[in-house]
Amino acid sequence: MSLTHVTASSSGPVSPSSSTLRPLPLGAVRLVGGYWGDWQQRNADTVLAHCETWMERIGWIGNFDAAATGEPFEHAGIEFVDSEVYKLLEAMAWELGRSGDPQLADRYDRLVERVAAAQDDDGYLHTSFGRSWQRARWSDLEWGHELYSMGHLIQAAVARLRTAGGGLLVDVAVRVADHLVEVFGRDGREAVCGHPEIEPALVELGRATGDHRYVLLARTFVERRGRGLLAPIEYGQEYFQDDVPVRRAEVLRGHAVRALYLAAGAVDVAVETGDAELLHAVERQWEHTVARRTYLTGAMGAHHQDEAFGADFELPPDREYGETCAAIASNMLSWRLLLETGDSKYADLIERTLYNAVMVAPREDGRAFFYANTLHQRVEGTVPPEDAISARALSSLRAPWFEVSCCPTNLARTLASVESVFATMTASGLQLHQYGDYDVDVTLPDGTPIGFTVRSGWPYDGAVVLTATTATDAPVTVQLRVPAWADGAELETPEGRRAAPAGQLVTVERTFVVGDRLTLTVPVQARLTVPDPRIDAVRGTVAVERGPLVYALESTDLGQDVGDVVVLPEVPVEDHGAGDVRVAVATRSVEAGPGLPYGSPETETTFVDTVRLVPYATWGNRGPSTMRVFLPTV
Amino acid sequence: MSLTHVTASSSGPVSPSSSTLRPLPLGAVRLVGGYWGDWQQRNADTVLAHCETWMERIGWIGNFDAAATGEPFEHAGIEFVDSEVYKLLEAMAWELGRSGDPQLADRYDRLVERVAAAQDDDGYLHTSFGRSWQRARWSDLEWGHELYSMGHLIQAAVARLRTAGGGLLVDVAVRVADHLVEVFGRDGREAVCGHPEIEPALVELGRATGDHRYVLLARTFVERRGRGLLAPIEYGQEYFQDDVPVRRAEVLRGHAVRALYLAAGAVDVAVETGDAELLHAVERQWEHTVARRTYLTGAMGAHHQDEAFGADFELPPDREYGETCAAIASNMLSWRLLLETGDSKYADLIERTLYNAVMVAPREDGRAFFYANTLHQRVEGTVPPEDAISARALSSLRAPWFEVSCCPTNLARTLASVESVFATMTASGLQLHQYGDYDVDVTLPDGTPIGFTVRSGWPYDGAVVLTATTATDAPVTVQLRVPAWADGAELETPEGRRAAPAGQLVTVERTFVVGDRLTLTVPVQARLTVPDPRIDAVRGTVAVERGPLVYALESTDLGQDVGDVVVLPEVPVEDHGAGDVRVAVATRSVEAGPGLPYGSPETETTFVDTVRLVPYATWGNRGPSTMRVFLPTV
Repeated sequence: MSLTHVTASSSGPVSPSSSTLRPLPLGAVRLVGGYWGDWQQRNADTVLAHCETWMERIGWIGNFDAAATGEPFEHAGIEFVDSEVYKLLEAMAWELGRSGDPQLADRYDRLVERVAAAQDDDGYLHTSFGRSWQRARWSDLEWGHELYSMGHLIQAAVARLRTAGGGLLVDVAVRVADHLVEVFGRDGREAVCGHPEIEPALVELGRATGDHRYVLLARTFVERRGRGLLAPIEYGQEYFQDDVPVRRAEVLRGHAVRALYLAAGAVDVAVETGDAELLHAVERQWEHTVARRTYLTGAMGAHHQDEAFGADFELPPDREYGETCAAIASNMLSWRLLLETGDSKYADLIERTLYNAVMVAPREDGRAFFYANTLHQRVEGTVPPEDAISARALSSLRAPWFEVSCCPTNLARTLASVESVFATMTASGLQLHQYGDYDVDVTLPDGTPIGFTVRSGWPYDGAVVLTATTATDAPVTVQLRVPAWADGAELETPEGRRAAPAGQLVTVERTFVVGDRLTLTVPVQARLTVPDPRIDAVRGTVAVERGPLVYALESTDLGQDVGDVVVLPEVPVEDHGAGDVRVAVATRSVEAGPGLPYGSPETETTFVDTVRLVPYATWGNRGPSTMRVFLPTV
Repeated sequence: MSLTHVTASSSGPVSPSSSTLRPLPLGAVRLVGGYWGDWQQRNADTVLAHCETWMERIGWIGNFDAAATGEPFEHAGIEFVDSEVYKLLEAMAWELGRSGDPQLADRYDRLVERVAAAQDDDGYLHTSFGRSWQRARWSDLEWGHELYSMGHLIQAAVARLRTAGGGLLVDVAVRVADHLVEVFGRDGREAVCGHPEIEPALVELGRATGDHRYVLLARTFVERRGRGLLAPIEYGQEYFQDDVPVRRAEVLRGHAVRALYLAAGAVDVAVETGDAELLHAVERQWEHTVARRTYLTGAMGAHHQDEAFGADFELPPDREYGETCAAIASNMLSWRLLLETGDSKYADLIERTLYNAVMVAPREDGRAFFYANTLHQRVEGTVPPEDAISARALSSLRAPWFEVSCCPTNLARTLASVESVFATMTASGLQLHQYGDYDVDVTLPDGTPIGFTVRSGWPYDGAVVLTATTATDAPVTVQLRVPAWADGAELETPEGRRAAPAGQLVTVERTFVVGDRLTLTVPVQARLTVPDPRIDAVRGTVAVERGPLVYALESTDLGQDVGDVVVLPEVPVEDHGAGDVRVAVATRSVEAGPGLPYGSPETETTFVDTVRLVPYATWGNRGPSTMRVFLPTV
């Protein structure tokens, strides 16, 4: 079912010139409510303005105004805060493409003008480098994030190009990209940026503009990596992925966001240049990383110190870093691999990661965010002030803004375009990978118009109902992903009921008439999950999952700290619905002596009661608490 | 059995003006071989020259020469490398006090002259701050380590004062201290140093010189702490112990070395000013910290990122930081509390910490060192180059030197004075806290001369034989520590055999004649240790200890990676001597699917054989390996 070079003129964030599964054109999927519709609306109503207000208030947007004057100024924030403004612009562009909201359009235009005014004559654009009183351009490729920031500018421009066909920001980004081709192209400076991001950005710009030079520059950056072009640092060259060439690496390693952005860019390069070796290298890296370096929530990154992957099976729940941006980056990678290969395992990981590792970040009102995401909160935190900037990794509750605040804007652009990963098409077929309440209408590459309403209580309920809204002249293929966790799923079609095996797409071939229904019923009842015994940090524990959701025990429900609790796995999990999942727990009292905690202590467990668990992504919304996902059984 | 104000004119590193147990005068304990005699000799022969050569080669000593010229220079190393030169001088002073080696004396004198030449006219001495082209004095109290470095200078001077009665370095240090009294005293600047160390140093200088102003300044620094005088940082004020006043804190927290140095200084201040409240606060903090935040080896510090204590029971073996300096600092604190209270639990922790958490640092040849000390090495490391500076926390094998190299010089001063914590006295009694091969000769405060040879194969063998070398006119008390782990110990005296209960001092009252023997026999056979179930990271594991030693499994002995191994605790540990402790192990094969490692995988264990464990402190001496102390049982 491979297609080649079917181009969609206007698609979402990723638009390969060829792929097994094709992204749908923009607007083909329209959220109409439910989990994702509500969150996308909250993003439009709250998150975008929250990010803009903060960045205005603390001078991150003002940096562009100051830079435009040509006079010396004190730069606000760390050197890569330009990128936060760009991610906000990307989010706004996707949102505008959908809503066309004139007030948002005004805000967008004014912001773009301020950014554009800071661009140098030769196309270079960065508020922290290059002026006579600043550090020289490209003088700190290890930490300066110059190309990283420009990469996000380019991504924002691509979003505008695809939603509005062009405009000032697109002109700015093309000048930036042309400048980069000159500086870093084949005959230019042999260097890479310490933080990947320019690679996928340049490929998307190449795809969106048809200018292959940008793809070639991205390829150059990918190929240069792993050759020690970056200066040694304390965390080792693997922090930068500059230890091993991308096509020779076996696993993702080092700084998680860096590793995942680079891998996404490498897939883009491989796809656009027909480089099967490079593609298969990244597929292998994804497999190894998922099987040995990924949390139950899909989160990646086990170390606080270097925000990095740990060794295989080094997955501590309490010291998990699990940066929100790494979860977003993981989905960027999985989506590219899903398009290229058509393998449902990538959509499975996207689902797990979205519902648990990404959506744990925002507070339910969309005005505060986690940056790091622990699976075990040992100490009740304090509520961060609503009007102050928080430290990124220490906040034990969601904070409104951070001194390095990459996650809120990354979440904003993700929510603004989240439906782009819900469905794909082949020449004469439609694939639904993620469920919710949405309408889908698309003309397939073979010319057949096709349309459905999709209704589902996902992620809380396992029924997905498709109703045809367009009649088809001839048989078309509709495929629905059955998650790998969904044992016992069934599909009901006008022809009858049949089993829908887990971990693959279930296929319907049919000439649809309006009103035809397809119902996928997926059992979501709560289940106990036992971790691989090689994950030392969670030996002797179980976790509870229900459908796509990982659950957590909070002290708020237990009535005491979650530290001294034991679950009784011989008592089944009670599932009275997504909001009332319960496990039987005992408390443990330990008769420890006064000395070190290693004296084979006497312990006694006392049955308490069944206690309610909450979806992990919602923990911490009721004030300070202690929390754990992995529940001790011994 | 409390004594007040018995001053010993010349003692080791800690000399309270009053205490329950009195430190012995310098020279009263003389190592004659065995574990500690050998290591102290290796320190004298190898470690001191190793540190001196490195610091000469990379310009850390040269900083003083350059500073003395008055001309601008490029400072070598991080801003607190002065302190490494001072710790070396302290180590040299203790060693010279014992050996008087003329070559070492020459090296010492030349080094002191170079240091002294860099002192400013007003007494200030630091090579990184205060010159017109440098940052201003005291301009970065959070990170500048100015007072910290001067504290180590003062400690070095105290060592010289106690071993040689005075000299150039003492004059230098007194001028430094007088300058500090002026700048930071009651009417001076209300500030503290981001890194404690000046506090115990000033108290010791006060003790050694009799000038109480230094004690009062130390008290001022201790009292100022916990009041937010240091600027906020990302890790929170607890990193600096500037979150809660010392006398109100319940537990040690934040950066481990900082916390322990501060606590040691607080005990010193409490003892010298009769401040029982402050003393009891630190006693409580020690108890809580030992019971909930201490590794089996005695190591402290669970976080790499901020080199800090974790929360209660957050003690990951793989991501243990366990900085060598924190273990040394822990012993500084425990020794002070042992002297003040006489409670054997402090000597127990000193023993555990010395043999496991401190002595794991040096490679067996004394030319390479661990900085961080993991209890679970997941990936075979590579051998660090012998001629290059290593990153402190990433080295998976001992490295010759680090870019921040506090641990080698700290180890050098510890080894050079290690016998100072072996024994104490009361008015008419002698207490032996640590065992080995040494002679002890001292005149007790009541005027009675007393002397013994002490011979023991400790830490490998549990027999300790004391032979009287001096007759006493009247009955004296000799007390021997019976470790808390030593169930079934017995003491044989000329009167006969009796049980010696674990965890306390066993007492002999006797009028000794030359040749009288006391034999303490302590069972050291290998034992399984089960951790407190609240330490989540080691649930479902056991450790093996033998006498005072913690043991470890290395891949070198197993013949494969230690990751997939299970011990069979129903098979007893085989103990054929300290060098041949064996456990029965099985390997586990896991039938994991291709996806995430949480799918209740099928596992199969296959009995392999018994495999030899090694004392943890010796791991990594046979080349790259994987290693674990906590062995899974499930």
